[in-house]
Amino acid sequence: MSERPGPTTRIRITELSGSSARERRDDLATEEPLELRLTAPDGTRRTVAITMRTPGHDFELAAGFLHGEGLARHGDIASIAYCTDEDLPPHARYNTVTVRLRGPVPDLPALDRHFLTSSACGVCGSASLDALRERCAPVLAGPLKLTPEVLYGLPGALRKAQGGFGKTGGLHAAGLFCDDGALVTVREDVGRHNAVDKLVGWAALTGRLPLAGHVLMVSGRTSYEIMQKALAAGVPVVCAVSAPSSLAVELARKFGLTLVGFLRGERCNVYAGAERILA
Amino acid sequence: MSERPGPTTRIRITELSGSSARERRDDLATEEPLELRLTAPDGTRRTVAITMRTPGHDFELAAGFLHGEGLARHGDIASIAYCTDEDLPPHARYNTVTVRLRGPVPDLPALDRHFLTSSACGVCGSASLDALRERCAPVLAGPLKLTPEVLYGLPGALRKAQGGFGKTGGLHAAGLFCDDGALVTVREDVGRHNAVDKLVGWAALTGRLPLAGHVLMVSGRTSYEIMQKALAAGVPVVCAVSAPSSLAVELARKFGLTLVGFLRGERCNVYAGAERILA
Repeated sequence: MSERPGPTTRIRITELSGSSARERRDDLATEEPLELRLTAPDGTRRTVAITMRTPGHDFELAAGFLHGEGLARHGDIASIAYCTDEDLPPHARYNTVTVRLRGPVPDLPALDRHFLTSSACGVCGSASLDALRERCAPVLAGPLKLTPEVLYGLPGALRKAQGGFGKTGGLHAAGLFCDDGALVTVREDVGRHNAVDKLVGWAALTGRLPLAGHVLMVSGRTSYEIMQKALAAGVPVVCAVSAPSSLAVELARKFGLTLVGFLRGERCNVYAGAERILA
Repeated sequence: MSERPGPTTRIRITELSGSSARERRDDLATEEPLELRLTAPDGTRRTVAITMRTPGHDFELAAGFLHGEGLARHGDIASIAYCTDEDLPPHARYNTVTVRLRGPVPDLPALDRHFLTSSACGVCGSASLDALRERCAPVLAGPLKLTPEVLYGLPGALRKAQGGFGKTGGLHAAGLFCDDGALVTVREDVGRHNAVDKLVGWAALTGRLPLAGHVLMVSGRTSYEIMQKALAAGVPVVCAVSAPSSLAVELARKFGLTLVGFLRGERCNVYAGAERILA
């Protein structure tokens, strides 16, 4: 393995076609664990997540994850760095990111559980949404309006921006667009949540949050977790190539987000917030 | 919401086609949180996971998750039940599963982190695989051999078995097959890990583990986590419609599993364990 793991990994494979087999080279999406640590000025140190991710844009992944989970905003972060322990093999060093906070490390309960439970026993989607309301305001019905033509152009623009990485067929993409369909930037990862975290982290670290007036387009499906990250980033419109889950739609409707799915060719389904689309 | 959430949820949506819009009904894959609790004979009680999942086969999901994580085998489980707290709304009651163990609740460190780190600082894929070796033996090169024809038939058989749920387009499927391509059973979920957990949990609860001589076919991609679950279940061959990650291939090669990807039409890529395929 090279010193620093790259986003793709080349290997030899056997390709079967009909009844014949041949050996050839192939590129895979790299998957490696990332340990995310928080440190505070008083010396407190805590691992808050270990996630499997595609190496690259790791500081953005860290900042985006912390923002989405409500653990730290851009202004709370003093610095972000890879592990500097020289006893480690370099590729392991690049799998640990330490975020130095300006204040204390947030309480652990929030870290252990992604949402509050409604009582001593039992969780449900509604309780999860109620807990989310405590830290995220609904997205206001702003002036953002999209034409169907702009929507129909997004999947192609996203695929084009994926460039070389698309060759692995194993990377999820998240793209940020303006209301005229112009691409702002794109991030990729084996984990679809990570691709969104990287994008939101990029926006956080470059002072672009909240993302009012923008559209988030993802290459796969939309779940509760994707919508939660979009809401925390203040992006009013989420589009996806594939289906949403029931809780993704419920979240979008409760918090005033527009949610589009099955965006393919010149058609799509609008699950929430259709008033932002000029049909 | 009805008393017990079902696997699909019907809503009204707006469908855009070209520049025209119409309202219609649509079925979504239901996504609801599930809280998994362990209790011990001494009264200890601990939440070990909260996962977003599609309701249905929840006891299997619990048993499969515990098996895959090395937290409890079938023989360790005294009973599995939904929450019986009558103060709760019924749909929340069906989102909490309690597994009563015959022995003590396993240590928390294993629950907090999915794999051990190689040192005080830094994680990497190799360290994750080393940690896995402590609890999973490699799958032995047994008599299982598959013809390309059997492989090529799996995706169609899986899609057919998905039946009505496939209509949402939002459910991942995991199917278990015999070496002649006959379907044993299939499970679905919004989360692809959950679909595999449900399948493995079914096998655990019906005394079928290890799944030697069987093939696991998944509808999406293969990651470290999917392969870890297959390894723990002793299934020697994993096939997928889409791409594997680098760590999925590394795991398969180190533990003697066969890994097939891009299984579509009359072709596929064999990433590991090609000796089980009679080309």
